[in-house]
Amino acid sequence: MRTKGAKNRNHGDRREEILRAACGLFIRDGFHAASMKDLCAAAGMSPGSVYRYFASKDAIITALIEADRARWLSAMDALPVELGLLPALRALAEQGLADLETRGFLSLWVETAAEASRNPVVARQLAASCRDCEARLAGIVERSQREGRIVSTTDPKLLTRLILAAFDGLLLRVAYDPSVDAREAATGFLEFIGNAVGAQAPRKGGRR
Amino acid sequence: MRTKGAKNRNHGDRREEILRAACGLFIRDGFHAASMKDLCAAAGMSPGSVYRYFASKDAIITALIEADRARWLSAMDALPVELGLLPALRALAEQGLADLETRGFLSLWVETAAEASRNPVVARQLAASCRDCEARLAGIVERSQREGRIVSTTDPKLLTRLILAAFDGLLLRVAYDPSVDAREAATGFLEFIGNAVGAQAPRKGGRR
Repeated sequence: MRTKGAKNRNHGDRREEILRAACGLFIRDGFHAASMKDLCAAAGMSPGSVYRYFASKDAIITALIEADRARWLSAMDALPVELGLLPALRALAEQGLADLETRGFLSLWVETAAEASRNPVVARQLAASCRDCEARLAGIVERSQREGRIVSTTDPKLLTRLILAAFDGLLLRVAYDPSVDAREAATGFLEFIGNAVGAQAPRKGGRR
Repeated sequence: MRTKGAKNRNHGDRREEILRAACGLFIRDGFHAASMKDLCAAAGMSPGSVYRYFASKDAIITALIEADRARWLSAMDALPVELGLLPALRALAEQGLADLETRGFLSLWVETAAEASRNPVVARQLAASCRDCEARLAGIVERSQREGRIVSTTDPKLLTRLILAAFDGLLLRVAYDPSVDAREAATGFLEFIGNAVGAQAPRKGGRR
């Protein structure tokens, strides 16, 4: 007899399987070209089974955005508290650069943004995800300011928005321009920003 | 009897009409949903006439990218030479912010990037357009450095890439997140960058 826990695990597993298949299919064919029928075939499930978990392609995309949000938030939470802003950003940039090794991942990210620009359901989810990541990163900026690692004259929200925008813009560019070296640009961006906020090892005495 | 000049003008006019109709259609329905058939109807032309000018949707998109490139390059060329980097960026940001008043324009821009991430023909055109704009902007950065308006320690190519990435990333965000105030963010970005490069009125003595 299956316990309730086992049943839930099974539910979660099948949901994960569908998401994994959807992600692979969207990466391969693009989000627009993939149909729910293709997805059922890729997941090896009947339409009835797939629709039990996800009512539409929108529901699948919002679940993929949610998974990405959770991954970035946990990456930020996993950063050692004693790390200053710049080392933290370098660690996060490494994660972003590792994602780039899957070229299709990048296309899928751009397509998700394109879908969000027309589809209010996807837009709400993606905007909420960005705001959560931004708030978490702003927390790291504020801590670095309190500890006197960076100047406290820069508005944490503005700096966070600039950092995310610069990296999103870089990803967007890399998605279609092979002449851009993502690692070189990311390193240069962080150096520029580090210099601008006077990043250095923490010192006693707090705010500057 | 029509002269050759009149014939060329007529050719150019019809090409422009098709592009205008395509732009309106793509903005309204999205790039993927619009078909060549829809486009013929929107332009009020027969398929034969439209295909005489553009062999495919790709050809139309690349023509739209080319028109956008020409518009930005001429905006940069029209900036008074005595303008320093920061006032020049403010003027360009105003043009970008004015574009945002047409919401669909923004979606079309994101969709073009998404198409470029999968379609090599569109990718080549968009990448070339970015590189041209980047080179022109790097020229403005270099002039400001020579005139001692900004520090000369920042690599002009890196700074240009960061500026374009930050503004592209901001546009991308604005495309799906109505909580982001594009003007406020753009102003903040330019202030941060201006402070970082020590922007000021030109002084005698050149490089710092």
